[in-house]
Amino acid sequence: MKIYLAGPDVFLPDAVAIGRRKVDICARRGLIGLYPLDNIIDLAADSASLQIFRGNETMMNEADAIIANLTPFRGPGADAGTVYELGYMAGRGKPCFGYSNDPTLYVDRVRERSQVTSQDGHLVDGDGLTVENFGHTDNLMMIHGLELHGAPLVVPHRAPDDLWHDLTSFEACVRLAAAL
Amino acid sequence: MKIYLAGPDVFLPDAVAIGRRKVDICARRGLIGLYPLDNIIDLAADSASLQIFRGNETMMNEADAIIANLTPFRGPGADAGTVYELGYMAGRGKPCFGYSNDPTLYVDRVRERSQVTSQDGHLVDGDGLTVENFGHTDNLMMIHGLELHGAPLVVPHRAPDDLWHDLTSFEACVRLAAAL
Repeated sequence: MKIYLAGPDVFLPDAVAIGRRKVDICARRGLIGLYPLDNIIDLAADSASLQIFRGNETMMNEADAIIANLTPFRGPGADAGTVYELGYMAGRGKPCFGYSNDPTLYVDRVRERSQVTSQDGHLVDGDGLTVENFGHTDNLMMIHGLELHGAPLVVPHRAPDDLWHDLTSFEACVRLAAAL
Repeated sequence: MKIYLAGPDVFLPDAVAIGRRKVDICARRGLIGLYPLDNIIDLAADSASLQIFRGNETMMNEADAIIANLTPFRGPGADAGTVYELGYMAGRGKPCFGYSNDPTLYVDRVRERSQVTSQDGHLVDGDGLTVENFGHTDNLMMIHGLELHGAPLVVPHRAPDDLWHDLTSFEACVRLAAAL
């Protein structure tokens, strides 16, 4: 079974190495991990970004399931590119798994960045925009998307020391996928 | 033809009113706009968030196409819930349209929030994470997803005075959808 390995891991300084570790963990459970950086892209070409998209989409179409790293990235929630891919795989009817190495609530992460106040019985941020407050770690579309299309988001009880390199929760997702 | 109206508009103080305006604009072009807040949800129920998810997914399955508001929300890029929905509709093979009222480049929005430097020929943010720099206004998955599954992201030349209530670019998407 082939698993598409989605996540902002591709933006890490050691993106290739972490992909290799993920593929190895998959292999130990008899799964084939497909990692975006394994696509061969001519980064000097004008069409580099389109080539990346096409490579990722082809990999997703080939994959039987997805494991998405939804650890908050450059804001209070998950990386948008990863979330697009999670939605895409859910739309294709393929099993979806995901993890986040940050177990804090979404609303608390918004609070770190903006003044959150209560207004007419719901929470709003400094711009007056409603803040989801259902006790989830991220937007409900991903939380329930995972729940209904695969398995609930895997989160550790406590954030690991290294948010970007600890693969304990990733490994839990691999076990879930291997049990399919 | 039914169009799913995705966006962080649902978090605005006047979320219902903006939904009504969008549905009206669709109607003038002979389209039926499906707006998430039109689902009837018992917000006091424990299952409120799951009800919202199920309502949205049912609407998406019923819709023939999506128009997604990708205006940056609570960070340098689009709202994650909206992006999930865009991916989902692309995965279902339905035409995808989107707009953003902020025409600035993604990399420039990251620069506003973090120290961006050049390292080994690519840009990294203050955390050492690579910043996509392909001249796009957001993550390449959404940019090319729209391009290949519907039409290129609609952006104004200049940001409108009211980022959340100006529907000029939304209306351009409606015209594209009506021409299908």
